[in-house]
Amino acid sequence: MTATRTETDSFGPLEVPTDKYWGAQTQRSIMNFPIGWEKQPVAIVRALGVIKQACAQANTASGKLDAKLGDAIVQAASEVVAGKFDDNFPLVVWQTGSGTQSNMNANEVIANRAIEILGGEIGSKDPVHPNDHCNMGQSSNDTFPTAMHIATAMSVRDVLLPGLEKLLAGLEQKSEEFKDIIKIGRTHTQDATPLTLGQEFSGYAHQIRQGIARVKACLPGIYELAQGGTAVGTGLNTDKGWGETVAANMAEITDLPFVTAPNKFEALAAHDAMVFMSGALATVAGSCYKIANDIRLLGSGPRSGLGELILPENEPGSSIMPGKVNPTQAEALTQVAAHVMGNDAAIKFAGSQGHFELNVYNPMMSYNLLQSIQLLGDAADSFTERMLLGIQANEPRIDKLMKESLMLVTALAPTIGYDNATKVAKTAHKNGTTLKEEAVALGFVDEATFDAVVRPEQMIGPRD
Amino acid sequence: MTATRTETDSFGPLEVPTDKYWGAQTQRSIMNFPIGWEKQPVAIVRALGVIKQACAQANTASGKLDAKLGDAIVQAASEVVAGKFDDNFPLVVWQTGSGTQSNMNANEVIANRAIEILGGEIGSKDPVHPNDHCNMGQSSNDTFPTAMHIATAMSVRDVLLPGLEKLLAGLEQKSEEFKDIIKIGRTHTQDATPLTLGQEFSGYAHQIRQGIARVKACLPGIYELAQGGTAVGTGLNTDKGWGETVAANMAEITDLPFVTAPNKFEALAAHDAMVFMSGALATVAGSCYKIANDIRLLGSGPRSGLGELILPENEPGSSIMPGKVNPTQAEALTQVAAHVMGNDAAIKFAGSQGHFELNVYNPMMSYNLLQSIQLLGDAADSFTERMLLGIQANEPRIDKLMKESLMLVTALAPTIGYDNATKVAKTAHKNGTTLKEEAVALGFVDEATFDAVVRPEQMIGPRD
Amino acid sequence: MTATRTETDSFGPLEVPTDKYWGAQTQRSIMNFPIGWEKQPVAIVRALGVIKQACAQANTASGKLDAKLGDAIVQAASEVVAGKFDDNFPLVVWQTGSGTQSNMNANEVIANRAIEILGGEIGSKDPVHPNDHCNMGQSSNDTFPTAMHIATAMSVRDVLLPGLEKLLAGLEQKSEEFKDIIKIGRTHTQDATPLTLGQEFSGYAHQIRQGIARVKACLPGIYELAQGGTAVGTGLNTDKGWGETVAANMAEITDLPFVTAPNKFEALAAHDAMVFMSGALATVAGSCYKIANDIRLLGSGPRSGLGELILPENEPGSSIMPGKVNPTQAEALTQVAAHVMGNDAAIKFAGSQGHFELNVYNPMMSYNLLQSIQLLGDAADSFTERMLLGIQANEPRIDKLMKESLMLVTALAPTIGYDNATKVAKTAHKNGTTLKEEAVALGFVDEATFDAVVRPEQMIGPRD
Amino acid sequence: MTATRTETDSFGPLEVPTDKYWGAQTQRSIMNFPIGWEKQPVAIVRALGVIKQACAQANTASGKLDAKLGDAIVQAASEVVAGKFDDNFPLVVWQTGSGTQSNMNANEVIANRAIEILGGEIGSKDPVHPNDHCNMGQSSNDTFPTAMHIATAMSVRDVLLPGLEKLLAGLEQKSEEFKDIIKIGRTHTQDATPLTLGQEFSGYAHQIRQGIARVKACLPGIYELAQGGTAVGTGLNTDKGWGETVAANMAEITDLPFVTAPNKFEALAAHDAMVFMSGALATVAGSCYKIANDIRLLGSGPRSGLGELILPENEPGSSIMPGKVNPTQAEALTQVAAHVMGNDAAIKFAGSQGHFELNVYNPMMSYNLLQSIQLLGDAADSFTERMLLGIQANEPRIDKLMKESLMLVTALAPTIGYDNATKVAKTAHKNGTTLKEEAVALGFVDEATFDAVVRPEQMIGPRD
Repeated sequence: MTATRTETDSFGPLEVPTDKYWGAQTQRSIMNFPIGWEKQPVAIVRALGVIKQACAQANTASGKLDAKLGDAIVQAASEVVAGKFDDNFPLVVWQTGSGTQSNMNANEVIANRAIEILGGEIGSKDPVHPNDHCNMGQSSNDTFPTAMHIATAMSVRDVLLPGLEKLLAGLEQKSEEFKDIIKIGRTHTQDATPLTLGQEFSGYAHQIRQGIARVKACLPGIYELAQGGTAVGTGLNTDKGWGETVAANMAEITDLPFVTAPNKFEALAAHDAMVFMSGALATVAGSCYKIANDIRLLGSGPRSGLGELILPENEPGSSIMPGKVNPTQAEALTQVAAHVMGNDAAIKFAGSQGHFELNVYNPMMSYNLLQSIQLLGDAADSFTERMLLGIQANEPRIDKLMKESLMLVTALAPTIGYDNATKVAKTAHKNGTTLKEEAVALGFVDEATFDAVVRPEQMIGPRD
Repeated sequence: MTATRTETDSFGPLEVPTDKYWGAQTQRSIMNFPIGWEKQPVAIVRALGVIKQACAQANTASGKLDAKLGDAIVQAASEVVAGKFDDNFPLVVWQTGSGTQSNMNANEVIANRAIEILGGEIGSKDPVHPNDHCNMGQSSNDTFPTAMHIATAMSVRDVLLPGLEKLLAGLEQKSEEFKDIIKIGRTHTQDATPLTLGQEFSGYAHQIRQGIARVKACLPGIYELAQGGTAVGTGLNTDKGWGETVAANMAEITDLPFVTAPNKFEALAAHDAMVFMSGALATVAGSCYKIANDIRLLGSGPRSGLGELILPENEPGSSIMPGKVNPTQAEALTQVAAHVMGNDAAIKFAGSQGHFELNVYNPMMSYNLLQSIQLLGDAADSFTERMLLGIQANEPRIDKLMKESLMLVTALAPTIGYDNATKVAKTAHKNGTTLKEEAVALGFVDEATFDAVVRPEQMIGPRD
Repeated sequence: MTATRTETDSFGPLEVPTDKYWGAQTQRSIMNFPIGWEKQPVAIVRALGVIKQACAQANTASGKLDAKLGDAIVQAASEVVAGKFDDNFPLVVWQTGSGTQSNMNANEVIANRAIEILGGEIGSKDPVHPNDHCNMGQSSNDTFPTAMHIATAMSVRDVLLPGLEKLLAGLEQKSEEFKDIIKIGRTHTQDATPLTLGQEFSGYAHQIRQGIARVKACLPGIYELAQGGTAVGTGLNTDKGWGETVAANMAEITDLPFVTAPNKFEALAAHDAMVFMSGALATVAGSCYKIANDIRLLGSGPRSGLGELILPENEPGSSIMPGKVNPTQAEALTQVAAHVMGNDAAIKFAGSQGHFELNVYNPMMSYNLLQSIQLLGDAADSFTERMLLGIQANEPRIDKLMKESLMLVTALAPTIGYDNATKVAKTAHKNGTTLKEEAVALGFVDEATFDAVVRPEQMIGPRD
Repeated sequence: MTATRTETDSFGPLEVPTDKYWGAQTQRSIMNFPIGWEKQPVAIVRALGVIKQACAQANTASGKLDAKLGDAIVQAASEVVAGKFDDNFPLVVWQTGSGTQSNMNANEVIANRAIEILGGEIGSKDPVHPNDHCNMGQSSNDTFPTAMHIATAMSVRDVLLPGLEKLLAGLEQKSEEFKDIIKIGRTHTQDATPLTLGQEFSGYAHQIRQGIARVKACLPGIYELAQGGTAVGTGLNTDKGWGETVAANMAEITDLPFVTAPNKFEALAAHDAMVFMSGALATVAGSCYKIANDIRLLGSGPRSGLGELILPENEPGSSIMPGKVNPTQAEALTQVAAHVMGNDAAIKFAGSQGHFELNVYNPMMSYNLLQSIQLLGDAADSFTERMLLGIQANEPRIDKLMKESLMLVTALAPTIGYDNATKVAKTAHKNGTTLKEEAVALGFVDEATFDAVVRPEQMIGPRD
């Protein structure tokens, strides 16, 4: 049996585990929402800490909040920021759509911790009250959206961008490493004109480079914070300038360029900045999908696939087929990419469903967006580390496939015309012969001209 | 520092925590896939236990597997089924797409536990080998899809259907309770002809009734198991009849009507039965969305909304607005519904992406589908318990709104024609008067006729 | 300048082209919704004709409608069914969400045509009134959903199922034709144990076979018709039994087993049967995607791809690369499949968004669903006709790839154990040698045993 | 019977209607792809004209193309740009995934028209050859993606942005018009603290303002053109600088800032810029959804809804309920929004599915994106014109609802504390009394203080 103490809210008293700092509203939410197994992400918990610290600083500075209480709240909140109370946030995602109960969870934990710091009795709401002091100048309706933006911005900076930048650097490195390897191109999955393996990887690199730029292009909207809108966007129960002050405090705490949102009605009733960011994530996910899928197909084999790339071997691939090795990092990344697309659909749906002054899909939207950020960042990192950097080109095979290609005939078309070149390729295909044999036999060119014109190394760029 | 022992696989030795039963391949996967925070669902772990138990039973019965070893494997596997080793399955969702490493996780835990039972040395693979004995006659390629189906079927039976049936019963109860309350109908969100509140709830009930039928219509495909296909669907390294035997064993263990899949190539390379089930879940999610959204709008207020329903009060609704109460259970359910639609998109995408003999989106697809099942079941239960059953009709307000409605004029149209009826309604709307006043003033009917024709209680069904 | 006549509705007079039968409400809708270029599908137009014919028959039979008028309406409506007035339905999809204006379009066209038959003046509403006579006993709110179901059922029968059944027959034919060709299997895109090409195609066939069954499993819900619910589901202004009567009439006109919906409130306020059908379509789309993608990859080449299949050549493949041939039918089918998944997302979203007694996403939902049906049916037909039936197996290449495969070692694992078999495969891979050479060199088997055990023709099924 | 002439391609001769300019490849595509009813959008046709004109100009300037031929091609292409040949582009969306046949359609029409200009025989390919001259320096693989970007950029400029800007201006106008009307706020669909109706509309305006900025943020990627990559991205068969030259020509023709794409491999193998733009469109669609949904709910009634807004009446709303008026423009816009979300899902799926050097979902992706652009632009325009600008505030009702609200108690919380304020609100709710009555009765404030503190006009912003 767990030891408990009594906490109360306007609905009455409830027993709370003695070793936890949360209060009655958190406990009530545990009881009221036995739904699923997904907890509020840690990034949200820490972001709530940032907010409570920033607001208490502002309230203390303005004199609205007694300095002794304010300092204790700031200390308690900073401990939340530091991760000391992660296990005091037990609530699930599937709760009230405003995130009110997670906001109260933060208020309650910080109030009780501040009471403890000040030598009071935990649960007494004295001298620190979760609503009157910790939530001073705040509503869940502006606080939770602010937490969503802070958590997003921090996770993008700390997880997503490092992962994508590592992937980009890896692709650029491989593009450089493979720059002199001429290979057959493939369009429609069919043989096409040649390019270098480095050029192929440069396309991958450019996708990720643009993806990073797209994510960054979505950040300014994320840096705009709802805090200061309070209940419906008007800023009731705050003073003029409050939004600016607390945004500046949050910027300082997190070292991110947060500003107050220019229109608080929009900031509460819609989460379009999150929706737009999700679109950027899904775009990057699509890029990752294409790259990983290409690499597993180019690395297919070892003997009966395309076999142009030799992929690193990380673990036994099969419980029944001895010696099998599989492109498992590509599989993890493509699974993540497909999942991010699902999250995007959920976010888009939810983002459109606000009613009047509030969108009540907050916990669900932030859960999905933060998961997408984490998964893409982690998977990009792991894919780079454990697959991309270890890829080797199978040069003999690449060279063989390239030289056999009928599509080298394209170089001949400007000389003999598209229709004649078609005859050469089709005849060689039918007879299983070389292009040169047929081009000469059909009387379109002599050997010397053929050799002068059909040179793969001159087919990998425009003419000078 | 955690105490460790050495385990080995074909890639070499690895240190594994002494207090865990898993082996080298599990440990290697922990190291190779530091992606996200989503673990393989417990339902998958237990389903793997079912499979290992069923296969060992079959292998012992056929004499392929030494009875002493077989019995130990059966015992160990049955402990996995019973949930005794949930904490020995540490792998994340974002791993190899075949789920090979989670299959090996099961093989390793069961092998080591069986070794322990038989008095051997954990980690020695002697006398029980994770591949040769625990995985006998199996491949990850048939095992993991089988686990996906078993986990799905069990979760549908144990979580989803009970939740939906509770919701259905609640809606039917309310439909009966409200059957004599005549209210205004609303189409296009605008006033329309009347119906009873019970009729309105009967529509909700019918949606869920059909939803349950749809989920059940998808179960036969889920009951078909891939086990017996082994590596590519051919059943290599099994005996004729193996698939039938192990499916029968699994049916007995789980008390569900599992059968062997009629075509194992399809069962490995595609997961269409999961995709179709996801479509049924998304359909039910849409139904839940509509119902919960209607209820929160009908219960909007307390003073400035539609106010026809009085919703139960479960917790303080606002951290800033004292006394506010919100439809939080409806919010949880609509958030779940939106999330399930995202999962459906992810599942559909992944389901289309198999290559050749295998679809490698197994862990991701099952994670999404099982999450949808759990969330819909839990949220339907909680919504019914904490919101639906406590709803009261605000009869005075319902009566007032109904009687003021201009759309009662519809009853008059068969008598005076559509065009004249339109004039009555438009004039009353313009003048803020009653229909009767204007119908008489315009000379279309006398008062007696009006009273005889325009009777709400006769407008709630066809004429006898 | 187009000649016009004057038509009127309750909003006033409007000029309508003399050579068209529509009236003021249709004309007003043209003016009010200049949105996009998507017209109401012809299938909806014809279905509205079915409804108007069936209702006029019922009204005439019951004596509510003068027989002379009724017969003229029946004749006019049957002409709509026969497609004679397709060009009299100019309205776009993006109109009122109930489809009211398209219902009125049908009422107006049929009324004017009936007036014409009876020798009256078009536009006079005399002796046939679009609302009082053509719409008798009907509301747009039950009529348009009924039209959606009728159009869906007819299109499934006439377009989708024939297309899928043709695809199934083609896949079965190829499975039989290829039944003795043993080829390498591929899992994770990597070489795996062998199967026959016929087995591979049998998996494709089974996907489509199940897909057809899934579509059929969704039809009973589509056969339930909303007609009889009128404005809000109560059946106001109808007589008892009306719903049953008109459903029977519609069944007779269309030769489809339509019945009246058991709950009309659900039938107006939700379109879950359409949503569920969309899920089945998306599942089939995923199957088609997988099949078409496999085929283009197996047919990749002609010289640098997998090259196991020889695909038919239908048109020049490139405007720059002479002689190039591409798997264009596979591309059309996969594009269709991807598009159907998007339609599914739109349908699911819309299906959840009903308010109170009506879902107002009717035209948009039916446009998406009917498009999915048409595209899948057409593309399955074209893919079968122009690609599938012409596919040839490249037997020499298939045989070569199969025999080189290292995964044949799997047959050896039961004899020498998984770990030793792994050594054989890894050594052969490293040295570029054969399995037999290394198995013998490593001392695990002698040549005779190897030859007796490793026999591809015995690896394509369970042991007897 | 249609008169025909014979045209030929490398697959042989075909009969083509004499009154059309297309050639054998177009005709072959008509025969090979009888799929669906969706034609290539006109925007794509015109964009192909832009490309052919720009390339012929460059080829003539460089001397590669005989000036007489070049001038004729430029003239013919400019006629395509001007829309003179829209009816000569009969191909459907569901064709080869590279759009090769639509590129050839343009080449064939322009070649035949140029032949006609030069007095030659249509169909003779002399003196203008569709491949050798019209397609000179081009491949479908760079041409069609270029057409996709040009069509997108032009449609965004000409249709989408004007529509959104009109909507923004309308919302701003209403925000200003309603700035002094204080109304009740609603969060969780429940009564909340007050705001002005102008503030509410300012939130809507800000959503659209940001949406426009998001669309514009996606344009730079759209302005980057693939032209110059030719078959696989290398630029084979072009000269250095070609990409820059033709992009500059296209910029001049269209008056849009097109530039050559920095990496052509990415530009052919992926369409991430289109995917990102789709995300922006879906974000705007979500904003439109929220706004239109709010407006129809705020305008619900006329007697039994929220009734705060009086919506314009545009057409008869019901075929059965006389005098009914519905928010049809909001319904059209929300249907469009839901549809755009489906298109977004389809585009995201397709964008991830490129293989190697080419993504073969071109026609399908551009069809979806251009449809989204057209529909959003048109629907925003129509919604503004026919609904938004005509909205009137129902001031008496707004005032009544606001003054009754219990949530005015929030203003009292800083004075008497959150817990006491809760008691006031709950008691007033229970007793059906006013806040003032209960606040005084409970002894928390006197009447004068209450009146001084609870003043709606001071609750609509922060304290000075």
